[in-house]
Amino acid sequence: MCEQTLVKTIHGAHHHHGWDNSFAPVARVIPGSMVELECRDSGNGHFTPDSTVEAVTTMPFDKINPVTGPIYVEGAEPGDVLKLTIDSFRPSGFGWTANIPGFGLLADQFQDPALMLWSYDRSSMAPAAFGKFARVPLKPFAGTIGLALSEPGLHSVVPPRRVGGNMDIRDLNAGATLYLPVEVAGGLLSIGDTHAAQGDGEVCGTAIESAMDVTVKVDLIKDTALAMPRFTTAGPVTRHLDSAGYEVFTGIGPDLMQAARDALSGAIDWITREHHMPPEQAYMLCSVCGDLRISEIVDMPNWVVAFYVPRLVFE
Amino acid sequence: MCEQTLVKTIHGAHHHHGWDNSFAPVARVIPGSMVELECRDSGNGHFTPDSTVEAVTTMPFDKINPVTGPIYVEGAEPGDVLKLTIDSFRPSGFGWTANIPGFGLLADQFQDPALMLWSYDRSSMAPAAFGKFARVPLKPFAGTIGLALSEPGLHSVVPPRRVGGNMDIRDLNAGATLYLPVEVAGGLLSIGDTHAAQGDGEVCGTAIESAMDVTVKVDLIKDTALAMPRFTTAGPVTRHLDSAGYEVFTGIGPDLMQAARDALSGAIDWITREHHMPPEQAYMLCSVCGDLRISEIVDMPNWVVAFYVPRLVFE
Repeated sequence: MCEQTLVKTIHGAHHHHGWDNSFAPVARVIPGSMVELECRDSGNGHFTPDSTVEAVTTMPFDKINPVTGPIYVEGAEPGDVLKLTIDSFRPSGFGWTANIPGFGLLADQFQDPALMLWSYDRSSMAPAAFGKFARVPLKPFAGTIGLALSEPGLHSVVPPRRVGGNMDIRDLNAGATLYLPVEVAGGLLSIGDTHAAQGDGEVCGTAIESAMDVTVKVDLIKDTALAMPRFTTAGPVTRHLDSAGYEVFTGIGPDLMQAARDALSGAIDWITREHHMPPEQAYMLCSVCGDLRISEIVDMPNWVVAFYVPRLVFE
Repeated sequence: MCEQTLVKTIHGAHHHHGWDNSFAPVARVIPGSMVELECRDSGNGHFTPDSTVEAVTTMPFDKINPVTGPIYVEGAEPGDVLKLTIDSFRPSGFGWTANIPGFGLLADQFQDPALMLWSYDRSSMAPAAFGKFARVPLKPFAGTIGLALSEPGLHSVVPPRRVGGNMDIRDLNAGATLYLPVEVAGGLLSIGDTHAAQGDGEVCGTAIESAMDVTVKVDLIKDTALAMPRFTTAGPVTRHLDSAGYEVFTGIGPDLMQAARDALSGAIDWITREHHMPPEQAYMLCSVCGDLRISEIVDMPNWVVAFYVPRLVFE
């Protein structure tokens, strides 16, 4: 982070639920500004180190996934692009992962609530223990980074959209640059849903959900067409996971969603059998460190989706 | 490769088109055997260093993707699993990539044939030049590794199935171990469709298609349930590509296939604009080095598919 740059802090009290372009900005910044946002966790403080699995059933769903903002970027107009350089994260050290009934890639198979609480070293960011079973490398990012939609009214925070939002892209780490299309004056940027670790897919529906302060540099690119969000990574994206290789499970068939479900089921079965984890814990472990990839999408009519489990976590 | 082990060679003349459990075995091996298979390229020798794009229109579609085999594994019965340890590849040094009309993730947008011919150093396996535009790191694998189906009759070689086949999984490199469920006596193993490089997805429908000799160790695991193929990698899978980071393009929406198409389109547009490649060449470049990943598959109703372009190829 550039020492000379003034950083504007947006406190966590300035958050909102869902997206609505009529929400009043909590701050106005000029392009080139550094902004630090205090991000609450996606459970909005509901979970504590003393929580039990019952807490999953009492989550206040109208208050989940609060995002800090919105920030009005001076000069931003529809047709522009907001360029966000992810500078750094200041994680809290506490996190949670849950299986929330009705939510997740295998919601039909995992109907009971489950909860894993994490404690990690916020300075060393050393791999965090999943009980006695595994150790998960950490790599923080914000699951939700988005702008207001042009369409009026209140929109759920859950689905991501063209303007970003709850994209849950685990490679938006420090050093990444994200480009989002602006649909309303000022863009109206908000950030939240910070994660200490997640695999590609976020298959159980939650990551290591963890409150963090996020610092980003906000720039504006005028009059640039951008159909969908894009980003760049500063360097490699999986080296924190890949050194011991992978156990990989495939799903093969004409439907990518079913193939993804089959691949994940194969992984959970294997972890349960080989590492004696209860299935619902294996499911949550997959969500925080395993990766969903599309191996081939052209050999009609059957596609191959593969779920990659990094062996490192069991060593 | 273990020096003491006798290697049985299956010559490329012993190939077949499509899968049929009535094809007579060309060899019988006992579990524990090392087998070297001479694999023809997926164009069955149709393309040469002198080929022009017209050759794409005269491909003999009834003769494409020949696979060498089948090999009868003594003792293999339905309900068993064949364990294949990928030992090594001996590549030819010549390859081709084509856009074949009607085939590929963006077949509707790329309706004209296109052809790229590759020459690479088979001993150094140094990155191969894509004209003046890019250099693609090589990492050989066999696109098609499969067993005969229990269902009688001739089955197209194009789609992969539960017994493997044309899976086009780019991480089945030397050192990987592949597990396939056996459906017929002897398993009836065949291998072909060798690739010098490919990204996850094989998005244009072809990789760097290249004839190679493949050596594998064949083992048998009796009476083991396996719903879908699985494999292990010996180590990291993307380090040959990731050192300079990635340019990443997203597709966001309720259909994974459309999201994949949108993500790929974003990548092609960017490569065309930033690196001045003709779009059909950018499409082929994406196929040989870019990766399709599912960033999130749980934030109902919109999923995020991302296409990762390694910046290394442009350096």
